[in-house]
Amino acid sequence: MNFREARRDEVPAIVALLADDILGAGRETGPDDAYWKAFDDIAADPRNRVIVAEVDGQVAGTLQLTLIPGLSRHGMLRAQIEGVRVAAPWRGRGLGRAMIGWAIEEARRSGCGLVQLTSDKRRPEAIRFYEGLGFTPTHEGFKLSL
Amino acid sequence: MNFREARRDEVPAIVALLADDILGAGRETGPDDAYWKAFDDIAADPRNRVIVAEVDGQVAGTLQLTLIPGLSRHGMLRAQIEGVRVAAPWRGRGLGRAMIGWAIEEARRSGCGLVQLTSDKRRPEAIRFYEGLGFTPTHEGFKLSL
Repeated sequence: MNFREARRDEVPAIVALLADDILGAGRETGPDDAYWKAFDDIAADPRNRVIVAEVDGQVAGTLQLTLIPGLSRHGMLRAQIEGVRVAAPWRGRGLGRAMIGWAIEEARRSGCGLVQLTSDKRRPEAIRFYEGLGFTPTHEGFKLSL
Repeated sequence: MNFREARRDEVPAIVALLADDILGAGRETGPDDAYWKAFDDIAADPRNRVIVAEVDGQVAGTLQLTLIPGLSRHGMLRAQIEGVRVAAPWRGRGLGRAMIGWAIEEARRSGCGLVQLTSDKRRPEAIRFYEGLGFTPTHEGFKLSL
């Protein structure tokens, strides 16, 4: 199991992972130009990274790690995790736990004082998963579609 | 009422706003070097902005606006709002509503498909405020201190 920055030729595999999900299925479709454009924007931004978990040469999981500088809490840098997915054959086998653990260590190495993420309330298993990893659900997570 | 990017000489006023809050009081002190460093990091990042609401030449409110590129939802750009504060004399007078409304319009102009934020569950009035502005509390907001 190897965690590293995604390569551009892995965009289709990552989009397939994003789509292979109860909530993602309605939101994602095949890799169109918008995904490539977004990948390039992320790759050019030193505070944003798309990460893949590689197992036997395959993309078995993905997440996005964003570093957010801020004035709050003594100018504390925070890390945010978005777009977490584990490929179906790998679910329930500890890959998600290892991937989030890796992201937390990356955040620490980058000097972050906090890691944050939100999880859709329609994912009770994901919510238990993050609680089990030591995250505390102290906040309401609000979204507004434009 | 004028919304604009904060100037460096406004860092002390912004830190005072961050501290003048039930939760912020225990987290913020003085302007020390870490705040100036964070301000410079934000100012140099085209996807991060500290915004102030200026009224009669005074800093009456602040928020941070972060643009986050991502692969999810067809490579959708999202905006995130953090560190929202309104100065005590201005609370309950519509400044917060105007400031968030301005941030939403900025997000739209930047091409975002979503605005997101989290609000501490110990702030029931803030939670009602965001619901009143059309935000939906679809997510659990998790934090992990490092």
